[in-house]
Amino acid sequence: MERSGETAINIPESNSAKHKSVPLASATTKAVPLPLPQPAWKRGVSIFDFILRVCALVAALAATATMGTTDQTLPFFTQFFQFQASYDDLPTFTFFVVANAIASGYLLLSMPFSIVTIVRPHAAGVKLLLLILDTVVMAFTTAAAAAAAAIVYLAHNGNSNTNWFAICQQFNDFCQRVSGAVVGSFIAAVILICLVVLSAVALRRH
Amino acid sequence: MERSGETAINIPESNSAKHKSVPLASATTKAVPLPLPQPAWKRGVSIFDFILRVCALVAALAATATMGTTDQTLPFFTQFFQFQASYDDLPTFTFFVVANAIASGYLLLSMPFSIVTIVRPHAAGVKLLLLILDTVVMAFTTAAAAAAAAIVYLAHNGNSNTNWFAICQQFNDFCQRVSGAVVGSFIAAVILICLVVLSAVALRRH
Repeated sequence: MERSGETAINIPESNSAKHKSVPLASATTKAVPLPLPQPAWKRGVSIFDFILRVCALVAALAATATMGTTDQTLPFFTQFFQFQASYDDLPTFTFFVVANAIASGYLLLSMPFSIVTIVRPHAAGVKLLLLILDTVVMAFTTAAAAAAAAIVYLAHNGNSNTNWFAICQQFNDFCQRVSGAVVGSFIAAVILICLVVLSAVALRRH
Repeated sequence: MERSGETAINIPESNSAKHKSVPLASATTKAVPLPLPQPAWKRGVSIFDFILRVCALVAALAATATMGTTDQTLPFFTQFFQFQASYDDLPTFTFFVVANAIASGYLLLSMPFSIVTIVRPHAAGVKLLLLILDTVVMAFTTAAAAAAAAIVYLAHNGNSNTNWFAICQQFNDFCQRVSGAVVGSFIAAVILICLVVLSAVALRRH
């Protein structure tokens, strides 16, 4: 599009990087190879992509660690019960830990590929792969965060219609840690959405 | 990339559609304009995109309608209570209805834009816009479906650690309808993921 005003014959952009040996026929015409302005901002986008990926990894790891180490024992007990709350009392929180651990692992493994796109801005296949996997992992992280948020809301407020009582009055410390983990997971999901949008914009003008 | 084996000078693809008047200089060389194979499969992808969009709309609308009309009154009551279960007894289900209604509205509004990409396969800006909005709506739908699924799981199985009892023994009909709505919403989310992947693949070779 940006070359629509020209009338001279250009060597196609996508080939000019590989064909250093310009064919003789083009040397006789008035063709001037373009200076390839794209890699400059494309590299910037790739570096920003890498930074966002590090941030998402930190958020997902923090969410996993916070939820995974949540365990509160109340300082009183009866003959039959010792009141204790742990994340694996609720299946949703177990799913949350697993999903965020998988997301952390994926983000760690995707970093070498992100570096490849910094070094080689024309590697469209790698970018496409990252975009697709980012989308899937984003959906996974969002699902885990939303499910945990629904349970945390219930733990805080309870529900009188179904006779589910709020447990956060007793397990205050537990609830605070769990809420923090949910917030961390949502931050990771939002950063992953940004990564998908960024990849799509970078992929457009390849 | 697919033209890397050639040595003749080609007219850049992106211009050949607009420049019907080929410059005189190129007529003297051996340049043969390529037959532009891209719009054919791109149009196929756009039509498939439209069909998937209709499917996602049906799934999201079905989820909204099923959840929104769920209401069960038990055939017995005490002096103080009439046992009744409705979707707005639980805030998560209200969020579910709102989120799926928004997703349905977006999918309906996005259809004209999808038709534009069928008619004009080179409209990259429209495709990019659809990809970004699809991603956001997909995250939204996934969050609603996951949150509702966590509550439905609790309603079916209860949780002995927190003294939340299963309510599906009493409200069996209610639980079945709600489960159906959650499944519909997950189907819509999966179709939206497919739409994002499809758009990304189509955007790559623009």
